[in-house]
Amino acid sequence: MKAVAIIAEYNPFHNGHLYQLKAAKEKTGADVVIALLSGNWVQRGEPAAFDKWQRTQLALAGGVDLVVELPFNYAVQPAHLFAEGGVKLAEALHATWLSFGAETPDLDYQKLIANQPDKNQFKQFDQTFATQYSDYLTKTTGITVNRSNDILFFSYANAKAQQGANIELVPIQRVGSDHQDTNLTTGAISSASAIRTAIQTLNKSELKKQLPMATYQLIDDVQMVTWKDFWPLLRYELVATPIAELKRIYQMTEGIEYRLKQVANQATSFEEFLRGVKTKRYTYTRIQRLCVYVLMHVYDSEMKIPSDYLRILGFNAVGQAYLNQEKKKLELPLITKVTDDLSKQELALDYRAGMLRQLVTNQQQDFYHHPLIKLS
Amino acid sequence: MKAVAIIAEYNPFHNGHLYQLKAAKEKTGADVVIALLSGNWVQRGEPAAFDKWQRTQLALAGGVDLVVELPFNYAVQPAHLFAEGGVKLAEALHATWLSFGAETPDLDYQKLIANQPDKNQFKQFDQTFATQYSDYLTKTTGITVNRSNDILFFSYANAKAQQGANIELVPIQRVGSDHQDTNLTTGAISSASAIRTAIQTLNKSELKKQLPMATYQLIDDVQMVTWKDFWPLLRYELVATPIAELKRIYQMTEGIEYRLKQVANQATSFEEFLRGVKTKRYTYTRIQRLCVYVLMHVYDSEMKIPSDYLRILGFNAVGQAYLNQEKKKLELPLITKVTDDLSKQELALDYRAGMLRQLVTNQQQDFYHHPLIKLS
Repeated sequence: MKAVAIIAEYNPFHNGHLYQLKAAKEKTGADVVIALLSGNWVQRGEPAAFDKWQRTQLALAGGVDLVVELPFNYAVQPAHLFAEGGVKLAEALHATWLSFGAETPDLDYQKLIANQPDKNQFKQFDQTFATQYSDYLTKTTGITVNRSNDILFFSYANAKAQQGANIELVPIQRVGSDHQDTNLTTGAISSASAIRTAIQTLNKSELKKQLPMATYQLIDDVQMVTWKDFWPLLRYELVATPIAELKRIYQMTEGIEYRLKQVANQATSFEEFLRGVKTKRYTYTRIQRLCVYVLMHVYDSEMKIPSDYLRILGFNAVGQAYLNQEKKKLELPLITKVTDDLSKQELALDYRAGMLRQLVTNQQQDFYHHPLIKLS
Repeated sequence: MKAVAIIAEYNPFHNGHLYQLKAAKEKTGADVVIALLSGNWVQRGEPAAFDKWQRTQLALAGGVDLVVELPFNYAVQPAHLFAEGGVKLAEALHATWLSFGAETPDLDYQKLIANQPDKNQFKQFDQTFATQYSDYLTKTTGITVNRSNDILFFSYANAKAQQGANIELVPIQRVGSDHQDTNLTTGAISSASAIRTAIQTLNKSELKKQLPMATYQLIDDVQMVTWKDFWPLLRYELVATPIAELKRIYQMTEGIEYRLKQVANQATSFEEFLRGVKTKRYTYTRIQRLCVYVLMHVYDSEMKIPSDYLRILGFNAVGQAYLNQEKKKLELPLITKVTDDLSKQELALDYRAGMLRQLVTNQQQDFYHHPLIKLS
């Protein structure tokens, strides 16, 4: 059995994901689809609208055979580190292919890789790092990489090259709306971001044709989690933490801790806070991720020396067969149950993210969740 | 002009306080009454039911001439450190007398001071420190010191001896109910603790004869703050902070951080949490203070090297005249306005306590409060 891996957030799983999954399977002829799924926080520095178990369920319902968690220390990171983790885990799971949506599936990533700059040179304080990086690439290669899925494509290619990975990259042309679009399309495929906005603003029934049935049922049953739920805790943390301690948080650089603290004292909502903190130097995404690190008490030591593992979130019969086929040959530890020791060490960040989530959802305390098993 | 100092919490100011104030003035013949008032957290490790400005107002209405803040690093401490700060500040303000209520005004404190043990010897883990200490004193001196105001009396005497202070101690026989009583008395003097309980459980009008008018009006206007208001923040902090970081908090000793974290994961109220954490080794008071340190992010460095100051919270014409008489001769800096620099350094803890309070009361952000002035 051969597997294709997909790195996903499924926040929530929608028709575009369904399309990509089928296309990846068709194009590769894979027997097994593995999703590497972000946990309770997503790459843009936001709480996942639905928790990792709910999203695992959607993935399994949508045809994914095996769901493995992309650990926090890769999932809540800029594109290059996100991609590094995804490629590493896909390779560790012995996937033959890594498939993903891209705006430009025929991107000349070899040329981009060959022309990479020294990243330390981007020190202009009136521009974001990403803009300076992208401008540099356009100038030296003539290729413009500034759309989110193309940036990820380039990052996957880069990570593959750096790791000497065997996995084959399979880009698939994105269809439907842009990743960042916040309006629903008239067709059946809208972006996850548009869907999240619609959940909060429209009558849910209007979303029926935009969503797979399982997702539609979930949004009907479960309240979406947003930054609004965590804002009182984040604000408290920023107000109560002395500057010298705030400075120790991962990615707290260039004195931004003063700005965060000052704005938190006055802001009355997360949106107001974000607007107050925003500068030309930092994207909203960068600031939001920093807020996650503050809220989660993330220090360098926990993020920079990851001890990799494969945490299984769910599978069906096909996924189980694949695990049985591969499990003795895997280089990384396979985790199906979080023990007390794991929760304090390797899995500390993922575990903490889960505990925090339970604080705001008032869910039953289900510390040591077993993988979800889909009986066909 | 000569002054008598009273170390107080006024939480809230009641008829017993009024009685003590008058008795102290009469007994000493003082021209000026100075109150050294705890800020937004009190000695038992609880949020002050009413904030320091509200309580200053009550004190001025009750006849206090000058209100000075007892800084957090003395106010939220066991009796010996609480007393150390109180005596130091009263002496620095050149008060001639220090007056306080006591269950046993003729306590032979000289004998107690002469028979003090090495405190490091009390290592029995099935008893609190206070019990072991008190048992030792009873055994060696025949004197029993186990009621809260007597313990403070002994602590004041001890602090005076250690500091070589000139201030004269003036104990006044306590009247009315015991400090710890939680039931209202039938007379006009009930304990502050009984009054706080009654505010939450009785019809407010039943409290009319138990309280000075200013206090009665306050409880009618303003919502009392309790641990219940801070519990979601404390719980978050305990859940989100890694053990290694929790261990750095002031007074986090003997591995109690594990216990706090574990119980916080499950408890659904502050009361349930306290009951879960309680052991024979720790009093509720000790645990509550520890919770304040966690919530406030208090580290050893901030508590152990206090830089003393005299923060003026309020005064009337008499208090002002006294300040004018003494201000050039004071050894400690007199602070009437919190500047940006002070809020980050000397006053960091008091300032943080104020900011935190505003988070839960949603009061207007009034960072740099001036002293309250009572025009007679």
